[in-house]
Amino acid sequence: MKQVTYIPIKVPVKRGRFNLYQTIKEAVEEQGEEILDGDILAVSSKFIAMSEGRVIDLQSVKPCAEAVKLSAAAHIPSSLAELIIREADRIYSTLPGFVLAIKHGMVVPNAGIDRSNVEHGAAILYPKDPVASAERLRLQILVDLGKRVGVVVTDSRLMPTRIGTTGIAVAAAGFEAVSDERGKMDLFGNVMRVTRRALADDISAGANLLMGETSESIPVVIVRGSGLTIIDRAVEKEDLVIGSDECVFIRCLSQKETTLYI
Amino acid sequence: MKQVTYIPIKVPVKRGRFNLYQTIKEAVEEQGEEILDGDILAVSSKFIAMSEGRVIDLQSVKPCAEAVKLSAAAHIPSSLAELIIREADRIYSTLPGFVLAIKHGMVVPNAGIDRSNVEHGAAILYPKDPVASAERLRLQILVDLGKRVGVVVTDSRLMPTRIGTTGIAVAAAGFEAVSDERGKMDLFGNVMRVTRRALADDISAGANLLMGETSESIPVVIVRGSGLTIIDRAVEKEDLVIGSDECVFIRCLSQKETTLYI
Repeated sequence: MKQVTYIPIKVPVKRGRFNLYQTIKEAVEEQGEEILDGDILAVSSKFIAMSEGRVIDLQSVKPCAEAVKLSAAAHIPSSLAELIIREADRIYSTLPGFVLAIKHGMVVPNAGIDRSNVEHGAAILYPKDPVASAERLRLQILVDLGKRVGVVVTDSRLMPTRIGTTGIAVAAAGFEAVSDERGKMDLFGNVMRVTRRALADDISAGANLLMGETSESIPVVIVRGSGLTIIDRAVEKEDLVIGSDECVFIRCLSQKETTLYI
Repeated sequence: MKQVTYIPIKVPVKRGRFNLYQTIKEAVEEQGEEILDGDILAVSSKFIAMSEGRVIDLQSVKPCAEAVKLSAAAHIPSSLAELIIREADRIYSTLPGFVLAIKHGMVVPNAGIDRSNVEHGAAILYPKDPVASAERLRLQILVDLGKRVGVVVTDSRLMPTRIGTTGIAVAAAGFEAVSDERGKMDLFGNVMRVTRRALADDISAGANLLMGETSESIPVVIVRGSGLTIIDRAVEKEDLVIGSDECVFIRCLSQKETTLYI
């Protein structure tokens, strides 16, 4: 049977912008590893954002009037509130210390802005365009190394009723990120009901297990033997996310009158 | 660097109750694999439920009055609605074909009841007590093979704003399922700030990638080299889940008056 292996790639801490592809290539070589056809490279969204210079000095951020209101509602610094407003596609609501927002189509606390693993007083945003970042990295590997790989941009995220964060795909390139099983039969010949599998999320979580959250310095994981289908067409954001008006969780939980049956 | 390997274990389709441990042991041996100290065994919750005879003939289910109401509200068969009411710890609300419920502390569509990969006209419930099932399997491996392993009971689940299902941990035994990183780094300092990692969820998603949803017949995955800490104390349900009154997603989304800032 086919086995899947996750190979962690340690990368020295960088400050300021850097060349993402060159940095990854050198780290892989230094570790005596290589990138092969069919590999999926899981790369931390924070690492990509850093390479793009998406680290903001909070002191340099001037909050607008709306940000001052959001800051008071969520009990967060007004500079952070300003960044959340700038970054978010939509803001749902707040709890102390917590702003639930939509960014890159995903429901995500604080619009994906994080203040950990960056210098004190700074915040790090999501990559500007994660789909483009993933596709560029995929093409650089194809052109420079001649290898057809997939790339997934990973983040760690809290999920409803769960303790602790798990890995999720912010963007993907070069592989079938969602498997459509509609019309397929199950073991007993039933036509499948839950019919799509978020393969990019599964692989992101597997990679997240190795990446850690603190000082591990493992922003890249090579996933080998996944058997995922390598493709050339672009993987769009809409391949991974649905609108919040279609999301069954958001629709169910935000119903004005919730009927409790038990 | 340490690599993590996921080894899929194919198991022939079974009907009726069966001995979970013996079945897994034989399948592992037939495949020429073995179980080693430090392995984490990911086992599908549906496979465990089948071994426990938790397959229900829907025709045999007599709906109560509340189930008839739920059936009408959710546009699902009344027999399925009855099972959901029996199984759920709490029911939130409904959409056509969809009942959002809490089961084993997790927010989960249809209280975890599924009608795929069982005989037509039947439904399969979650294992009766997934924590106990995981712990029993762990101890059987310890006693019979002398190996100290972890066990995680996995399911696939839709997540907010995502297309497709990803793997999640229903229960765990024998390893530190959540890593507590509080105090390890200087974060927001707010109560809501995320400082724990759902390792059991990460590993479940990695295993889910290999298990598939249709006719793959891979209900078990051996995860080797994860480096997760093997423990003897029981992993409680409360190690994995928080109450819905504490969940930031549920609290944010179910606020009666949602203020939109942008």
